[in-house]
Amino acid sequence: MRASQFFISTLKEAPADADIVSQKLMLRAGMIRKVGAGIYSWMPMGLRALRKVEAIVREEMNRAGAIEISMPVVQPAALWQETGRWDKMGEELLRFKDRHDRDFVIQPTSEEVVTDIVRGELKSYRQLPKNFYQIQTKFRDERRPRFGVMRGREFTMKDAYSFDRSAEDALKSYDNMFAAYQRVFDRMGLTYRAVAADTGAIGGDRSHEFQVIADTGEDAIVYCPDSDYAANIELAEALAPESARQAPGAEMQKVSTPGVKTIDELVAFLSCDIKETVKAVVVEGDAEDKLPVLLLVRGDHELNEIKGEKLAGVAKPLTFAAPESIVAAFGAQPGSLGPVGFKGKIYADRSVAVMADMVVGGNEDDVHLTGVNFGRDLPEPEVADIRNVLEGDASPDGKGVLAIQRGIEVGHVFYLGTKYSKEMGATFLDMDGKPKHFEMGCYGIGVSRILGAAIEQNHDERGIIWTDALAPFTVVIVPMGMKRSEAVADAAEALYQGLLAKGVDVLLDDRDERPGVLLADSELIGIPHRVVIGDRSLKEGKVEYQHRRDADKTELAAADVLDFMFGKLGI
Amino acid sequence: MRASQFFISTLKEAPADADIVSQKLMLRAGMIRKVGAGIYSWMPMGLRALRKVEAIVREEMNRAGAIEISMPVVQPAALWQETGRWDKMGEELLRFKDRHDRDFVIQPTSEEVVTDIVRGELKSYRQLPKNFYQIQTKFRDERRPRFGVMRGREFTMKDAYSFDRSAEDALKSYDNMFAAYQRVFDRMGLTYRAVAADTGAIGGDRSHEFQVIADTGEDAIVYCPDSDYAANIELAEALAPESARQAPGAEMQKVSTPGVKTIDELVAFLSCDIKETVKAVVVEGDAEDKLPVLLLVRGDHELNEIKGEKLAGVAKPLTFAAPESIVAAFGAQPGSLGPVGFKGKIYADRSVAVMADMVVGGNEDDVHLTGVNFGRDLPEPEVADIRNVLEGDASPDGKGVLAIQRGIEVGHVFYLGTKYSKEMGATFLDMDGKPKHFEMGCYGIGVSRILGAAIEQNHDERGIIWTDALAPFTVVIVPMGMKRSEAVADAAEALYQGLLAKGVDVLLDDRDERPGVLLADSELIGIPHRVVIGDRSLKEGKVEYQHRRDADKTELAAADVLDFMFGKLGI
Repeated sequence: MRASQFFISTLKEAPADADIVSQKLMLRAGMIRKVGAGIYSWMPMGLRALRKVEAIVREEMNRAGAIEISMPVVQPAALWQETGRWDKMGEELLRFKDRHDRDFVIQPTSEEVVTDIVRGELKSYRQLPKNFYQIQTKFRDERRPRFGVMRGREFTMKDAYSFDRSAEDALKSYDNMFAAYQRVFDRMGLTYRAVAADTGAIGGDRSHEFQVIADTGEDAIVYCPDSDYAANIELAEALAPESARQAPGAEMQKVSTPGVKTIDELVAFLSCDIKETVKAVVVEGDAEDKLPVLLLVRGDHELNEIKGEKLAGVAKPLTFAAPESIVAAFGAQPGSLGPVGFKGKIYADRSVAVMADMVVGGNEDDVHLTGVNFGRDLPEPEVADIRNVLEGDASPDGKGVLAIQRGIEVGHVFYLGTKYSKEMGATFLDMDGKPKHFEMGCYGIGVSRILGAAIEQNHDERGIIWTDALAPFTVVIVPMGMKRSEAVADAAEALYQGLLAKGVDVLLDDRDERPGVLLADSELIGIPHRVVIGDRSLKEGKVEYQHRRDADKTELAAADVLDFMFGKLGI
Repeated sequence: MRASQFFISTLKEAPADADIVSQKLMLRAGMIRKVGAGIYSWMPMGLRALRKVEAIVREEMNRAGAIEISMPVVQPAALWQETGRWDKMGEELLRFKDRHDRDFVIQPTSEEVVTDIVRGELKSYRQLPKNFYQIQTKFRDERRPRFGVMRGREFTMKDAYSFDRSAEDALKSYDNMFAAYQRVFDRMGLTYRAVAADTGAIGGDRSHEFQVIADTGEDAIVYCPDSDYAANIELAEALAPESARQAPGAEMQKVSTPGVKTIDELVAFLSCDIKETVKAVVVEGDAEDKLPVLLLVRGDHELNEIKGEKLAGVAKPLTFAAPESIVAAFGAQPGSLGPVGFKGKIYADRSVAVMADMVVGGNEDDVHLTGVNFGRDLPEPEVADIRNVLEGDASPDGKGVLAIQRGIEVGHVFYLGTKYSKEMGATFLDMDGKPKHFEMGCYGIGVSRILGAAIEQNHDERGIIWTDALAPFTVVIVPMGMKRSEAVADAAEALYQGLLAKGVDVLLDDRDERPGVLLADSELIGIPHRVVIGDRSLKEGKVEYQHRRDADKTELAAADVLDFMFGKLGI
């Protein structure tokens, strides 16, 4: 592509409302333009990179035997009512009425439509397994769209859905997709980690997220450097401490703690170790009266809400108790709550269960209790893993200690079981002639999000650094003063034609701009390979090559540049 | 592609609600499945054909210098309010509110968004001309979706928008797109006609539709077989008759016509020539009181509503007068209306203006007048071209007589002028340093509709007949009894690999179905080239070739089949 026939539109500064580096760089490099909150146009430069992602995803889906279809963006509510998602999903699901006052949604995913297709099309076990995928526009009406294309409202997603005879076969389909996802992200040259993830409300027992590693990631990823253990922090198990509980060493005492509301204030006030304190979190119960349930974690630990939500008797989704019901149940305001004397259900984290001589809230405003011991001052609690793991915790596989990284979720594979096929009555005739519900899996890749994640992982102060696989152009030729020097123009054109002939995505930057602008733009846009052809060096038979990651230029004989580039590109 | 790894799902019968042959065949061939009224999923077979259309359109847009972008499906109302389309567009424009109660639309086209992009990006005449296009999902909330993908609600459209310095340059961009459209439809192998079209409310003086010729088309296309005149019937001019008006030959007489309401009844009752009668159509005027305007066309002619709407004093859009206001203005019910004594504005069609001794309504129920003459019984009327042309009418270019065909609109090119750039304040600095509004054009292709149109034009009683360019597969290999005969399997595989190696889109139908099913499916799906490999004929060293349009098979030496196919495919 010649720049003069393309559209390059870079900005010196990102708009003030851009809130993360990838968004700033995508705006500055002219990849996207904002149309509304969380809604973007893809400009020519961005669209080229997006198509690279789509092509890799499509190739690997096809290679894995998945079959491409395309389901509508606008979908009738009736299908969503069959699975109950019409009611269950929150305001992220964009609902509207058509001119005849009929209800519709804009698809955030397509489980309903694909299951509707399959119940009409697949009649026999002989047609299984099948995996249908699409690369389509999705919409999720985020309350607070942010991070550019990473948490936009309109986005492009690849969603695949597998249909199998049995759970065993479904897990084979799952593994097949898992491997395809590895190929996708390997080919893109991204540093990523596949981590076990929570299966949430859907249930089923297998789910993995593919996380691109980046300090700015929204997700915390837990892994063990000494083994292949890796999980989302939502799922990562915190083992019980190895040490057993010590015998009580102190009497329970009431302590006046005026104005003390937080654990930090408590530790400072009592000059105690934070590991002696216990945080009390009050959540709604799942009975009709919503009678509160008390969750206890050690002062230095954080409640894991996903784990908490799974506890018997706890309302789903997890809901923190309202102040009124806290005061009614405990006789005190938050800040002084504790387990002693509480008549409702109590869950203690595994780390709390081994504590002795605890410091807890006194259920009386501005009062705490010290020297509190289970079995003596209050009954033995129900014990569960309800906290987030910390760096240095023992790995659940017993092979070392845990480390934590930040990640950006770009893919998710999910074994669904028969949830949707049962809700929608989707069956096939099995070998024994009897109808059976399809065993399903669903598999998403955030196609547009990948570009944001790749930039979060790969950039510097000058701009984006693309991998060859994702770059809008693989090579940029920057002729210095092409208009003034015929030799420069000829050399640039010869290299351009030589690369084009081998199918290389090459940009010849023939814009009539100052050299400084051309060089800065190529770095901002992040094209991995750059050849600069200058009048003076060309007279000495030289041109310059620089990879976007290189600190320095490499001087080359002009005559060798094409072969040199073929070598760099592995062609 | 091996059929066993693909998804072929043909139906013996189309669903009962399919209302046109292309829709029936697309459903039967497993190309689409209905999700809701006017909303379809594209199944694997259909998606392949859709991608062929997209690829041809994209190549020709790129070749014409247009630059691909992608604008969002969901667009903020604010932009649509700037141009007034938010208010002016009817219920086809799907409007909805997001979770924060802000207004949005789903794009039916993207003039607003692209003009918003351009007013931010293009600052100088040096950046012009520019043409941005997208191939994107569109939504139009049709009152009565029908004809499958041809008048669906969700559809894929290519929309391009050109921006130029001057009207002269804009018309060059227009001609450039016109030529690109010709290449697109030529490459697709469709029989089509580019016809001049009405420019409607937008104004501007140039607009052409690209119409695929088919008896089932919704549009009437007028052309002159002896010249290159071609226009949509909405636009085609009806010349004034060559003969002048004769002198009055009869006195005006009141005739009692009990129960006579229509022209046919009038002609039968009076035993007169229909060409002596005049139809009176009453429409609303554009003044605040909507005082009616009377339009007169000859009894055998049809009012052209587009022409009528353009008349001075007529309400836009054209609105037929309500019965109450007709009775108030004429003193009679429709069926007996006429110009004599009417005090409002009257337009007579050119054919009416030359009539003498006319038969008209008497403005008294069940009464008509005969022997009516302009200039004697009523004033001379204002004369205009307000009727549809008929086959055999003189061509407006004076080169013969007109013929009429039916067509399906698949493309539209439109010179917009500065309508949108003025409404949205989109300017660039011209050579003289002064801001100037962009001269624009817009150019649409109904990407998904093309498939329906192609099938309307090319099918027979056995199914679809694809051109090579649009076929989901160019070649199908049908092995008879592949499982029983190793020789058949080997020959099929060799041909398959040979064609694949040359990049041919070939389907190896390796499904374990009866030969009759395989042959019928290939014909229903409409794959243009078919090679049948049977056990018995293979023993004699023969295979069979048949083009989908051929009545008979061609027997070939098995050894020559690959070269024969290369010849057929021109490779």
